[in-house]
Amino acid sequence: MAQAELALIVGAGSGLSGSLARLCAAQGMRVALAARNTDKLKGFSGASLHRCDATDPAQVASLLESVEVPDLVVYNPSYRARGPLLSLDPEEVRKTLEVTAYGGFLVAQAAAKRMLERGRGSLFFTGASASIKGYAESAPFAMGKFALRGLAQSVARELGPKNIHVAHFIIDGGISREGDNDNRLHPDAIAQTYLDVYRQHRSAWAFEVDLRPWVERF
Amino acid sequence: MAQAELALIVGAGSGLSGSLARLCAAQGMRVALAARNTDKLKGFSGASLHRCDATDPAQVASLLESVEVPDLVVYNPSYRARGPLLSLDPEEVRKTLEVTAYGGFLVAQAAAKRMLERGRGSLFFTGASASIKGYAESAPFAMGKFALRGLAQSVARELGPKNIHVAHFIIDGGISREGDNDNRLHPDAIAQTYLDVYRQHRSAWAFEVDLRPWVERF
Amino acid sequence: MAQAELALIVGAGSGLSGSLARLCAAQGMRVALAARNTDKLKGFSGASLHRCDATDPAQVASLLESVEVPDLVVYNPSYRARGPLLSLDPEEVRKTLEVTAYGGFLVAQAAAKRMLERGRGSLFFTGASASIKGYAESAPFAMGKFALRGLAQSVARELGPKNIHVAHFIIDGGISREGDNDNRLHPDAIAQTYLDVYRQHRSAWAFEVDLRPWVERF
Amino acid sequence: MAQAELALIVGAGSGLSGSLARLCAAQGMRVALAARNTDKLKGFSGASLHRCDATDPAQVASLLESVEVPDLVVYNPSYRARGPLLSLDPEEVRKTLEVTAYGGFLVAQAAAKRMLERGRGSLFFTGASASIKGYAESAPFAMGKFALRGLAQSVARELGPKNIHVAHFIIDGGISREGDNDNRLHPDAIAQTYLDVYRQHRSAWAFEVDLRPWVERF
Repeated sequence: MAQAELALIVGAGSGLSGSLARLCAAQGMRVALAARNTDKLKGFSGASLHRCDATDPAQVASLLESVEVPDLVVYNPSYRARGPLLSLDPEEVRKTLEVTAYGGFLVAQAAAKRMLERGRGSLFFTGASASIKGYAESAPFAMGKFALRGLAQSVARELGPKNIHVAHFIIDGGISREGDNDNRLHPDAIAQTYLDVYRQHRSAWAFEVDLRPWVERF
Repeated sequence: MAQAELALIVGAGSGLSGSLARLCAAQGMRVALAARNTDKLKGFSGASLHRCDATDPAQVASLLESVEVPDLVVYNPSYRARGPLLSLDPEEVRKTLEVTAYGGFLVAQAAAKRMLERGRGSLFFTGASASIKGYAESAPFAMGKFALRGLAQSVARELGPKNIHVAHFIIDGGISREGDNDNRLHPDAIAQTYLDVYRQHRSAWAFEVDLRPWVERF
Repeated sequence: MAQAELALIVGAGSGLSGSLARLCAAQGMRVALAARNTDKLKGFSGASLHRCDATDPAQVASLLESVEVPDLVVYNPSYRARGPLLSLDPEEVRKTLEVTAYGGFLVAQAAAKRMLERGRGSLFFTGASASIKGYAESAPFAMGKFALRGLAQSVARELGPKNIHVAHFIIDGGISREGDNDNRLHPDAIAQTYLDVYRQHRSAWAFEVDLRPWVERF
Repeated sequence: MAQAELALIVGAGSGLSGSLARLCAAQGMRVALAARNTDKLKGFSGASLHRCDATDPAQVASLLESVEVPDLVVYNPSYRARGPLLSLDPEEVRKTLEVTAYGGFLVAQAAAKRMLERGRGSLFFTGASASIKGYAESAPFAMGKFALRGLAQSVARELGPKNIHVAHFIIDGGISREGDNDNRLHPDAIAQTYLDVYRQHRSAWAFEVDLRPWVERF
């Protein structure tokens, strides 16, 4: 009997990871959640929980060896130092780059290793408005999100022809789970688009999708 | 009893329009197909057929008045003069601009008029690799597809906050319906993504999606 | 004795064309100015004046045959219909496309014909913020300026290796000649950058330069 | 008597830094060169030489305190790990990010501190084709160069209105100093464009300029 598909979602705690986990589970997929702080992962009874600092090569390698070959890996973590240029703490800037971009590389590399063995897989990266526009007083986040997009493009070009679907999502606006407010991105709505892209036939794969609320200025 | 949704697809004859018509019909939508040459539309027994030159303001106005308010309008027409710059016939270049971009404006304006009356709707434009890259010896097509993208962006910014979902699709590669070949974009696969985007909740609308076959170099 | 270089500036009347004419003349170049309305060209005593509707293939062909082979051709004309989508007059939209983009094609083609005979030349196009962003309630201008950029890219890729330098300038902000105000783009400052790019060695040609005042938000 | 302007060029050893140093000196500017390995800086008799690891906050702070307020700072360093994704050493990827992007942040911050005290300055960053396109098998370099561009955009938006000219150059192609070959970017030609941009009036500042040889495919 065929195993259920496995989704590995890295960087829990945000609304998006939770929505993705629930949607994947509702679709009959198995779900693994990984985060530095697994306390944030409580309450996902249907998912396996994994403690992992995505900026640590050994922990990421270990994470990807501890699960079966994932069909879908989503990289969500980000960290953001912001403020006027002169006020920024260099260590916080380094951390922003490491969590937002370098961890994406580590996860991509470790996930690709497993997926290439099997000859298929999907690898998704979560970006932001800052992925394509460097806003004033937000240099570190722009650096991290631009870098993640560069990574995604490069990996898409390398791995697409090897049957691994790499996609990058530009989430343009604030995420909110409040029921009555559709002026902000609802994480369930974002998750639905990730799933749609995951289900795409390989004759017409999306690389990049930008998502924003209907009222968002852009 | 609620009326079925209405999809109006402008520019039939390509594989994409046919696939969209079939998919919309299979989803229980009513379908209207419009093209300059209605001979190309034969065989879509489930759709109403409309003769319309999309570059003629009166014909486009007439088309949009002759149907009920569409829930979804898709603009597909394009025309392409190509060759070395010195070999291009200025009249062919003008036609490329008119079919590829100016007709898109006319349809957008006439469709928006109906949709704004009702307070909702979706308006999709079909682009190409040439929407974002001007290839050598293909200036007219780049002009038309760049222009269509500029139109789509502008209209998205104006009409999004009025509850009209404007989206632009970059089809990056050749389209083919041949069953065994997933090295080219299958029009059914493209159509599925259009439908997914049409079904998006307005808290997380996509503006732009690029689609290409897994093997495509980009 | 070597002839002075010839600059042909199409679309006079704006501050930029005047500044370019004066700067080129000050550099010892000969200057030809072409515009639909030659009344606007009065006062350039050092330049030859040419009446030309840039959207008319015959007039453009005639213009380029009436002058010696230009070393530099600059295409400046634009026209702008704007307002809410529903308020736009289709004929004004067509005119926006023709003046802003189609005329650029005609001039590029006619200029390239002369330049290719001699094996060198520079062909510059003037864009705007709207070349890369479609603003709300400004669809026609976005269509025209996006199209002009697509043209410039395509022609740069075709003609660069034939020793013709094609460049596109994104003028991001309002132009003003008022002496004390450097919050808006001074046309003399823009012209200086055009000249710098014209003087570039072909081992390092710029294709695109964006210019804006120091205070401009972007 | 007015002091000569001071140019601080970070990241020597490449052809570009040397050409910039010579051109600035020829223009009567004072030149300071900083690099991790000062052996590479020998032979620039007219410049002050500074040993500095641009990825070390303390060394960068020290460098900027050891010189007078620079009028122009250019950040050139880059490092490149490349190869198939699975073959990349995570430490090499980290180093690529640090040298190519994080060092740019450190230099920008330390230079801005000095320039803001005086109320003017120019801060230039050297990018590459990989700044806007993530090539296959070159993920780390894309990450670094994308990040540097995000930094430059953010800092330009913050510091432009404070009279600091921030510019980013996309060097698209290989650099070569060989005299007879203009099929590759000559560093003197690149340096000339940097100087032209440095000399721009603030009513029309360039943020981004792409440079490539006339024969380059792009």
